[in-house]
This record gives sequence, C-alpha cells and structure tokens, in this order.
Amino acid sequence: MVGKVGIAGLGLIGGSLAKRLAGAGVDVVAWNHRPHPYEDARKVGITCVDTLEELAAAKPNVLILCNPLKVMPAILEALAPVLDRETTTLSDVGSVKAQVRAQVKAAGLADCYVGAHPMTGNEHSGFDAADAALYDGALWAVSVDDKTDYDRFLTVAQLIVDAVGDRIIVVDDAMHDRAAAMISHAPHAVATAMVNGLVASPERNVAVALAAGSWRDMTRVALTDPNRTRAMIKEDGTNVARLLRGLAASLNGFADSLEVGDEEAIADFFQAGQPFRDFKAVEKTQKEAEDFGEVQIRHIDKTNWQESLKALTQVGEHIVAFPARTEVEVQLRSAL
Amino acid sequence: MVGKVGIAGLGLIGGSLAKRLAGAGVDVVAWNHRPHPYEDARKVGITCVDTLEELAAAKPNVLILCNPLKVMPAILEALAPVLDRETTTLSDVGSVKAQVRAQVKAAGLADCYVGAHPMTGNEHSGFDAADAALYDGALWAVSVDDKTDYDRFLTVAQLIVDAVGDRIIVVDDAMHDRAAAMISHAPHAVATAMVNGLVASPERNVAVALAAGSWRDMTRVALTDPNRTRAMIKEDGTNVARLLRGLAASLNGFADSLEVGDEEAIADFFQAGQPFRDFKAVEKTQKEAEDFGEVQIRHIDKTNWQESLKALTQVGEHIVAFPARTEVEVQLRSAL
Repeated sequence: MVGKVGIAGLGLIGGSLAKRLAGAGVDVVAWNHRPHPYEDARKVGITCVDTLEELAAAKPNVLILCNPLKVMPAILEALAPVLDRETTTLSDVGSVKAQVRAQVKAAGLADCYVGAHPMTGNEHSGFDAADAALYDGALWAVSVDDKTDYDRFLTVAQLIVDAVGDRIIVVDDAMHDRAAAMISHAPHAVATAMVNGLVASPERNVAVALAAGSWRDMTRVALTDPNRTRAMIKEDGTNVARLLRGLAASLNGFADSLEVGDEEAIADFFQAGQPFRDFKAVEKTQKEAEDFGEVQIRHIDKTNWQESLKALTQVGEHIVAFPARTEVEVQLRSAL
Repeated sequence: MVGKVGIAGLGLIGGSLAKRLAGAGVDVVAWNHRPHPYEDARKVGITCVDTLEELAAAKPNVLILCNPLKVMPAILEALAPVLDRETTTLSDVGSVKAQVRAQVKAAGLADCYVGAHPMTGNEHSGFDAADAALYDGALWAVSVDDKTDYDRFLTVAQLIVDAVGDRIIVVDDAMHDRAAAMISHAPHAVATAMVNGLVASPERNVAVALAAGSWRDMTRVALTDPNRTRAMIKEDGTNVARLLRGLAASLNGFADSLEVGDEEAIADFFQAGQPFRDFKAVEKTQKEAEDFGEVQIRHIDKTNWQESLKALTQVGEHIVAFPARTEVEVQLRSAL
C-alpha cells in the first residue's frame, strides 16, 4: 500500500479523491490554489499545505495533479525544481492525455510521470461537493508510453485498485484521446452541425413544432455553452476532424444507397452497429444482476508490459487487482 | 361544432382521440380491425361498428383514419365505393403526409381529404392504453394542398381546436415531411452512423469504457429496432438523403476549419446555432410560467388561404381558435 499521496487541487475530483484515500487510511497531503477548503479538509484527516513547494517537500509516493488543465503548465513549472523525483511519482486526472504528457515533458518531469483519467464526475464542482462515493465502482484509464517505468506504473495502478478500490484499463495517450474524441468531442460537433442545419432551414418552425425525444436527445449537448465546447474540440482538433470526415463519408455513402435503392447496402448500414446493441444488452444484464463475470488471471509480458496490458484493454478486460508483480486479475465486462 | 366523427382504428392514438371527442359531447362512431376494444369503448359512449361499410354508412362529418400506415391502401380501397363524399370529410393522423395523400389520390378520395398529424403519443399501444389526456395541450399539423376545399379544412381545423381543444399549424405535405426528416428520420441515420463508426474502430472498447452522457444521448435512437428505423427512413428516403448530404458537407467544412485553424470559421460554426439556444431558453421560460403570450387575430387571405395560413406557421404562430370564417386567433409560441 502506498504510504503517502499528494493532491494538487481540492475541487470536486481532487477533493473526492483526497477524502476517499484519507478514508482508506492513506496519509493524504493536499494543496489548493486558495485555502478556503482547508478547514473542512483537515476535519476529515487531510493535511493541507500552503504552497506547491511544501506539497513536494512532503515527499508523497504519488502526487496527483487534480487542477484545471489550463493551469497545468504553471503548476508543473513550480513543481519541477522542488519535486523529489526518486520518491515521488507524478500523476494526474486530466481528460486529455497527450496534451498533459507534452506539458509534463516540457517541464522535464516525464521520467516520473504516469497519466490517469478517472471516469467519474457530476454536475457540481468544488470541495463542498466532494464525496468519497464519487469513486464507487469507477473505472480509470491509466496512460503509459514506451518510456514509462514499470515500478511507477505499478505504484499508481495499485493505489487505484487497492486504496481507491476502483478498476483500471491501461491505454496510451493516443488510444485515450482518439476514444474520447469518438464518444464525446466529435458528437458535440455533430450535435452543433445538426442545430445549425435546423436554424438554416426554411422549415425550422415546423421542425421545432414536430420535434420530440430523438431530436431533443441528439442535440442536448449543443445547448451547453458553445465557447466551452469550442475549446474542448480545438484541444482535440486533429482527432475530431478525422472522425467528422469519416462520419461524413458514411452519411454520404448511405445517402447514395438510399437514392439508388441499394437494399443490400441499406441493410448493411443498419446491421453494422449490431455488436454495439448486443454490448449494451449484455451490459444492462450485468448491471442489473451486479454480476460482471469471474475474475481471471492474466500474465504480463515483462519485456513488453505496455503492449501486454493494452491488449487486455482492447478486448474489454478491466484490471481489478495485481496479485503479483507480473500478474493481473481481470474481469471481462461486456465487450465489443 | 361537428356533429358526428368516425374513427377507423382504436389503437393508442385513435382510441385516445375517440375518448377525447366522446368526452367533449361529440357523437363518435368507431371501427377497429378486431372487435376486442368494443366493450370498453361502448362504456365511454363510443358507438362501435363491425365493418368499414357501416362506418361510412353512419355518415360522419369527419372520418379520421387512425390505422397503421401499412394498411392505409386497403382501408381506402374499402371506403372509396361506400363513402358519402358530400357529408364526410376524410382525415388521418399519419406521421408522413405526402405518402398518405398519394394513397388517398390513388383511391379517388382526394377531393374530400384534409391531412393531419397530432404531435402526441407515448411508449404504449392499444385501446387499453388510450387516454383522452394524451391530447392535453397537443399541437396538430394540418396538411393542405392547393386543391383542398376551404370548408373541409375549416371543419377539420375547428374540430381540433374546439372539440379536441388543441392547437394547429397549417402545412403542406412537403413542409411537413421535410421537417420530420430533419428532426427525426435523419437524426436516426446519424445515430446509426455514429454507432457503426464506434464498432469499426480499434479503440471501441476504450471508447465504451470512457462513454458518458453525451454518447448515450446521441446514440439512444440507434439502439431501437434497426428494421423499424430502416423502414421509417426509407419511407422518407429522398428527404433523408438530402439532409445527410448537407450535414456531411457541414462536418467536412468544419473539419477543414479545424485543420487549417480558421478561427473565424470555427467561431461561426459554434455561433450559427445560437437562435436555437435562444428559442429553447424562451420555450422553457414560457412553459414554466405557463404563459405563451397574448392571443392575437390574424386575417386570412380568402383567395390564397393555404399560403396565408402556412405563412403563420413559418413564423412560429399556432392557431388556437377560428372566431370567424377568415379570421384566426394565434399565439406566438417561442419561434426561430
């Protein structure tokens, strides 16, 4: 078990993690850009410090950056000269991975870094909303590259499965960011384009009069602050542009099939997504039964551990424990 | 007030309408393809008959076809030789309008037809689920063409605003079907294409692990029976193909802007939908306040009443009453 964890940023995600770890008996030391959460944090056993220098000087085994992405460069710059790189492994909870790693590299801290992204959150923010239960049953993506040190990976991964009690999948930054583009960033652009099409249509007032659930659901994300959406999409612009071109090609191809009445191609279009429908059906059954299948042992290839662990991710296996240095326990959740 | 209304089809939509009209004191005579709902229907004052011939022989002022679209040609064929066209105006509640009108024409009944489509429904079906409250505050699209008789239009429209107590917008079949393609049929195809893209991706299991609300909402309609979706889209294939090509062009254009970093074009993309966001904000305020604005009088141009009434629709005005033969009362709901 990790002895001491540092948390930079006591917002919803960092604050909930600090509470979760303190509740699990981990020695937690935290810094926030303003001290207003410190009184409440100390009540639940979190040690609070006033500067990033003090946070580094506390020599945590893992220091997890839970600050907003926009201040990441400034925080890394402040930590670089004071971090004890022998003792401390640096991690984060950022929702884009390639960008954070580039900033970590620019700060000269790549050697001690292991990226992470917990799949959790809610509509609230700040330490007042922080709740250890936010991490109940959560999945973390742990992001590595070919230079990542295995011991540092194990330290972060074991912290997540043992102290936080969550599952992990191992990814590289590109896998993570491509997947995030697919399930979030590109869909935001699609919803925006659909709304733009409605507004430009002479039938717009007929359309909104006829609109029901399918339109409401498919355009909901276009109603959120367009400036925030724009910033999110631009951060991942290359992936989003590639996905939008692929989707456009698929829509044009289907339009061709409709126009020429190519019944086989039309049938294929509606059949191609069947594995996702099957996946959702199995997922629903597993959740209702609270039964995610037997835990099985997988052996890790020491010489190529990154690829060995990413291969588990690709087939839908989630790591739930590390019984030995080169063994993991996995659950095969519903997989595509 | 209309004296007698015929209903063909006592399913959810037709059964609820029959109950609503009977409850409002209208003489309702109904036929269903099987007699199982008749006992319950008679209890609420609905006269039930065993054949379409008897339904026509009852000489309703308006006969509303509430049967499934796929049996429409057979029902029209049975009615054509027996309908008293002087007395009876034919209408329907179908969700596509051009197709129904074509079938009505093919049966030689175009002269006495006024199309309609009530915006209501729920996940249930059958007379057991029928409920007069299904029409509470509902909006109907009433579809006319340049040959539609004004008296017959008035008969149907007044039935809806007076006896049913609902609002109407006047459309032609093309406006209606293009709008339905925009807010329902094309979005179903887009959701299907997004799911197909996920299934084809090497990152699919990372993507489903990371997936949250935006993905779930945008692909929900792709989880429904793909054969039903396919049938729905093919019925409106020309409109859907045109919309998908437009959306594909918009997505490719935005991908270009992202790749070359055209900040002005990117900003325009996120700004173009602002009227829809404003519309939704006003709509929400109106609903919460239950205040949809003053009722105002609009005069109808007798020589070109179709265009005169469709012009109200285009600016978002809903007709709530007919105080005189060439006057309507409208409410300007939130409009785009």
